[in-house]
Amino acid sequence: MSTLQGFSIPSTQVAAVVPAIGSDLEIREQHPVKQAKDLKPGECLVHISHTGVCHTDLHAKQGDWPVKPMNPLIGGHEGVGTIVAIGDNTPNSPVKLGDRVGIKWMADSCLNCEFCRRGFEMNCPNVKLSGYTVDGTFSEYVVSYTNHVTPIPKELDSAGAASILCAGVTTYKGLKVSNTKSGDWVALPGAGGGAKAAGLKVVAIDTGAAKEKMVKSLGADAWVDFKTSKDLVADVKAATGGLGPHAALVTAAHKSGYTQAIQYLREGGTLVCVGMPDAEMGANAFWTVFKSIRIQGSYVGTRQDAVEALDIAAAGKVKVIFEQKQLKDLKDVYEDLEAGKIAGRIVLEVSKE
Amino acid sequence: MSTLQGFSIPSTQVAAVVPAIGSDLEIREQHPVKQAKDLKPGECLVHISHTGVCHTDLHAKQGDWPVKPMNPLIGGHEGVGTIVAIGDNTPNSPVKLGDRVGIKWMADSCLNCEFCRRGFEMNCPNVKLSGYTVDGTFSEYVVSYTNHVTPIPKELDSAGAASILCAGVTTYKGLKVSNTKSGDWVALPGAGGGAKAAGLKVVAIDTGAAKEKMVKSLGADAWVDFKTSKDLVADVKAATGGLGPHAALVTAAHKSGYTQAIQYLREGGTLVCVGMPDAEMGANAFWTVFKSIRIQGSYVGTRQDAVEALDIAAAGKVKVIFEQKQLKDLKDVYEDLEAGKIAGRIVLEVSKE
Amino acid sequence: MSTLQGFSIPSTQVAAVVPAIGSDLEIREQHPVKQAKDLKPGECLVHISHTGVCHTDLHAKQGDWPVKPMNPLIGGHEGVGTIVAIGDNTPNSPVKLGDRVGIKWMADSCLNCEFCRRGFEMNCPNVKLSGYTVDGTFSEYVVSYTNHVTPIPKELDSAGAASILCAGVTTYKGLKVSNTKSGDWVALPGAGGGAKAAGLKVVAIDTGAAKEKMVKSLGADAWVDFKTSKDLVADVKAATGGLGPHAALVTAAHKSGYTQAIQYLREGGTLVCVGMPDAEMGANAFWTVFKSIRIQGSYVGTRQDAVEALDIAAAGKVKVIFEQKQLKDLKDVYEDLEAGKIAGRIVLEVSKE
Amino acid sequence: MSTLQGFSIPSTQVAAVVPAIGSDLEIREQHPVKQAKDLKPGECLVHISHTGVCHTDLHAKQGDWPVKPMNPLIGGHEGVGTIVAIGDNTPNSPVKLGDRVGIKWMADSCLNCEFCRRGFEMNCPNVKLSGYTVDGTFSEYVVSYTNHVTPIPKELDSAGAASILCAGVTTYKGLKVSNTKSGDWVALPGAGGGAKAAGLKVVAIDTGAAKEKMVKSLGADAWVDFKTSKDLVADVKAATGGLGPHAALVTAAHKSGYTQAIQYLREGGTLVCVGMPDAEMGANAFWTVFKSIRIQGSYVGTRQDAVEALDIAAAGKVKVIFEQKQLKDLKDVYEDLEAGKIAGRIVLEVSKE
Repeated sequence: MSTLQGFSIPSTQVAAVVPAIGSDLEIREQHPVKQAKDLKPGECLVHISHTGVCHTDLHAKQGDWPVKPMNPLIGGHEGVGTIVAIGDNTPNSPVKLGDRVGIKWMADSCLNCEFCRRGFEMNCPNVKLSGYTVDGTFSEYVVSYTNHVTPIPKELDSAGAASILCAGVTTYKGLKVSNTKSGDWVALPGAGGGAKAAGLKVVAIDTGAAKEKMVKSLGADAWVDFKTSKDLVADVKAATGGLGPHAALVTAAHKSGYTQAIQYLREGGTLVCVGMPDAEMGANAFWTVFKSIRIQGSYVGTRQDAVEALDIAAAGKVKVIFEQKQLKDLKDVYEDLEAGKIAGRIVLEVSKE
Repeated sequence: MSTLQGFSIPSTQVAAVVPAIGSDLEIREQHPVKQAKDLKPGECLVHISHTGVCHTDLHAKQGDWPVKPMNPLIGGHEGVGTIVAIGDNTPNSPVKLGDRVGIKWMADSCLNCEFCRRGFEMNCPNVKLSGYTVDGTFSEYVVSYTNHVTPIPKELDSAGAASILCAGVTTYKGLKVSNTKSGDWVALPGAGGGAKAAGLKVVAIDTGAAKEKMVKSLGADAWVDFKTSKDLVADVKAATGGLGPHAALVTAAHKSGYTQAIQYLREGGTLVCVGMPDAEMGANAFWTVFKSIRIQGSYVGTRQDAVEALDIAAAGKVKVIFEQKQLKDLKDVYEDLEAGKIAGRIVLEVSKE
Repeated sequence: MSTLQGFSIPSTQVAAVVPAIGSDLEIREQHPVKQAKDLKPGECLVHISHTGVCHTDLHAKQGDWPVKPMNPLIGGHEGVGTIVAIGDNTPNSPVKLGDRVGIKWMADSCLNCEFCRRGFEMNCPNVKLSGYTVDGTFSEYVVSYTNHVTPIPKELDSAGAASILCAGVTTYKGLKVSNTKSGDWVALPGAGGGAKAAGLKVVAIDTGAAKEKMVKSLGADAWVDFKTSKDLVADVKAATGGLGPHAALVTAAHKSGYTQAIQYLREGGTLVCVGMPDAEMGANAFWTVFKSIRIQGSYVGTRQDAVEALDIAAAGKVKVIFEQKQLKDLKDVYEDLEAGKIAGRIVLEVSKE
Repeated sequence: MSTLQGFSIPSTQVAAVVPAIGSDLEIREQHPVKQAKDLKPGECLVHISHTGVCHTDLHAKQGDWPVKPMNPLIGGHEGVGTIVAIGDNTPNSPVKLGDRVGIKWMADSCLNCEFCRRGFEMNCPNVKLSGYTVDGTFSEYVVSYTNHVTPIPKELDSAGAASILCAGVTTYKGLKVSNTKSGDWVALPGAGGGAKAAGLKVVAIDTGAAKEKMVKSLGADAWVDFKTSKDLVADVKAATGGLGPHAALVTAAHKSGYTQAIQYLREGGTLVCVGMPDAEMGANAFWTVFKSIRIQGSYVGTRQDAVEALDIAAAGKVKVIFEQKQLKDLKDVYEDLEAGKIAGRIVLEVSKE
């Protein structure tokens, strides 16, 4: 085994644990830490400094998705920290002790199956999911995998990088498969994921004056408030020169978000689904065909997508907006998320860097 | 005006007319024929010898689609005939008097709008639809458009070519946008559209011993009967090596066809919609995203798609199976279609060649 | 025939004529103007206000390309003006009298052949080339074609729009086929064509302090002077993080430009050829294969490419830098071009707007 | 370490060794075999039964490529055999003891670098090349890599599978990147690589009556003999309907093969380079641009490409033609190859299966 020189791995740590599906979160002060000698080939131990909190973490806690999480579970899948140990017999590791790395939703994949070989790592039958099928980043130390952790560019601070690793990558990948090019219109909730950096024109579809101000400051070219609009489809078309946007990224939990997108999209346009409600999209077959619409399911991002999204953020092209709290605040954050009280992104400080 | 030498255009003709939305079809013996001198620039008069009959013709008759047909209406959008006149001031026509040409669903488009320029001719705002927004091929003479009629290769007889122009082109284009390559598995109702010619492995999903025999004779590699299968999703996966097909062409009128396709498709696969029921597809957002599925609306074909589909048929790669009747039989054919009594394709002889 | 109300088309005009291949340019004051009644269907008469001058105009004058120009010839293929007449029997024209339009290298194509149908309009066998196989924009009035003239967005002035129509579109299209995405590195002579607008990182390869200052002001991320660099390949790699750019746009007249590009390009990268010397590229087969390089010939742009390039310029994303002169100065401009004395772009004022 | 049950790994073997660049091949009877205990994590020992011989093996022997081989060297990169040992600490190996696997040119890559992540495994900076930078298949036992050996489908015999692993995969991948679809024309030396299986029309460009007979028996649609043709460019165009093929796979060692391809290719077509002479292609810049030609370097194939090529062969879609000899005949085979006496493919039996 190899351990970061001068670093002492404690035997216990603070961790936020969901004991069983649907149970309340527990902040445990004496959770055991896997020791360097117990790491398997390919595993590494990451000392987490920051982690984002995502709506998916609530699904992991409630177990309300068709694919079930393990339990007890430490959630969290957008964390940043330092590699403090690497398992023996890990040849050709792309990362080394002391590297600052990110942990994303896809913790590991086999790199050998048809899906990994074809660039669909997230569809690997042996995929491991951070904070879902393996323990995640809501703890001081987490076991991760040398092949899949993502080096953090030096230009980014850890708190800012954390939220790139899930929200950022997911939106970035959604845009990457949206079949758009510089100059095209895209409809987004918010203004993120590098849409402006890629030369797209953004019509932000969201609600509230605060959100409007924020997305306009991020460069959105048009704004439609889905709560106050009397005819959302007409308003989106009007905002995009009459023909509608070339693509739309939809995260909606309700049918209407998808139904409206098919109506306002330009003929030949792409509806990128990035939200994952266990619900029907309500896409009408006649209009999907008649308008030559593509509906593209876009599921998180690969190792390469994560590198690219961080690279664009490192170049200063994407502004990350978040509020920082502490790991012990996680229970309150969950309550606020469930109550719909959180507008932006929450990043937790887990340890001092 | 220019008229085919030696050809005399009559003043009246036999035509099958739908007088009003939802009315019964009338076979009129004395329907007027537009004369050569009345043709506008870009128009041509085609003397129809054969025309296919398509389920869409019923929608045109009933007016039950969200986009409404004109009335009174002569239906029909897969016809073959000879150009007997071309309007004055039609410079640079790609076809000439005496050419044997096909008339497809898309009768004309402007060739100048954004959609035409980008290869989405079928989404042109000024598109004309044969047998729907302009008169179609259920008559001895039809006005069509020199830019859009499709030359018929000499290797094909007119009756056989007719059904390529709609069913054939639609399936061909569906496969073209299915994101598959030689060696991949595709699920199809039937075995057509050049799937085997393109090196795809076909799992035919249909019903009945007669259909099974036919699709196997056309080269289908596997067969699943959707009526007798106890677990269609499991059977389709088993038939395709366990992982499911790379793509599925779905023409279903009911939700279940789409819901099942998303379940049996291989991760990263493509569901091509070619059917146009005015109904929801019932696609589940969670699985569409989690499996990285693409749902692609594929609406008929362009001028180039029609040329390519006919070219593949002319090379003997696609076997066309149909039953031939007469134009005056059209009322009976409609009744049989509505009663679900027609398994294959019906082609009507309209005039002697 | 239809003529712009209140506009009187003169019988003669000022025009710059090349009487025969290789002859000196003549500025003729009494060149005849084609009158409205003589326009064929699909033709329009454009009153030119501004036109750019391009290196290709010298090839047209010298006749030193394998494809020969017509003679006598009025050159010029990046002009802006107003439509003052349209030929009779031009149905469905996408432009109308009084429209301000651009004339690009591709003056017309048939819109019906395989190449036009597949989006390769520039490869139409019946293509007409402005200032090469038909008279161009170095005159007060030019006959052009309603299907191919490009509407000029109101945000652009005519002088600025002129140079978008050739240099701008050519670079824009080159980038469009360069297989790059936001965040990738591209090597360019200059910093143009919307590379920065599309989120690309630009390494400008050019020479001279003036050029360096200009491309940096346009946003180039790195600069390599090909005259002073001691190891251009090493310098370009170093400037792009060590791996080399993902794509390079090469306009070089000499072998070395291509040979070096294959050396400095990242594995899997794309060399886009936009220059057209009648010379070998000197691409080495071993390295092209071993590095999985794509060499893509990119020939001007289609109607849609021109619309997109102008749209991006209209959004203020591309800064056009040029020097304005008068049509009568064209002889001097040619001499300066031949002597290599012109660094930027020259736009001629042909008539007062 | 783990060794195939009941199998005894000898300490020495027969191997064909090139002692130094340019030296004569030596058949050594007592070459040492790496033992199971000495295998590193990720390594496996393969007992070779058959291996193909390729022109590249001559380059490895002569060291005349810009990238140099190691020495002494055991060549060979298209072998089939059985895994008889796997190194300790090889977790999640996609293959197991006793599996029949293929060894291709690319013996290993890191799976972690930018190139591996993006599907350009062959451009991995840490790539290992069989019979070039690591010992290859011209010996009874070879060390290879669990991540990269390719399972052989049970439908294929080992001798037939051997030549798929280099010639087959290379041509298959060349076609995969050729930007063609079912019904398109492709120019090939021979008729292989699944071109017919993918529905392409093949114009075979080769020489001699024996070759003509063979490629026609394999389904070539047209034949042009490059030695007897008086105008190869005209003959290829005539054979493909006048416009030329949509793509050409070129393996030529001389400039003329590339120069001619650019002349006979259809506008917008693709020249796929699969041959690797250390020589200029002689591609003319004017015509490459004017005809919108793409020149695509295609370098062997990835793990997924190898699986796909073998899968198509296993389906009976590709007929492999070769002559079988013994490992000890390799010196004679090299002499015949150098003398240009070998028309087809040679496969050596190395051990009895």
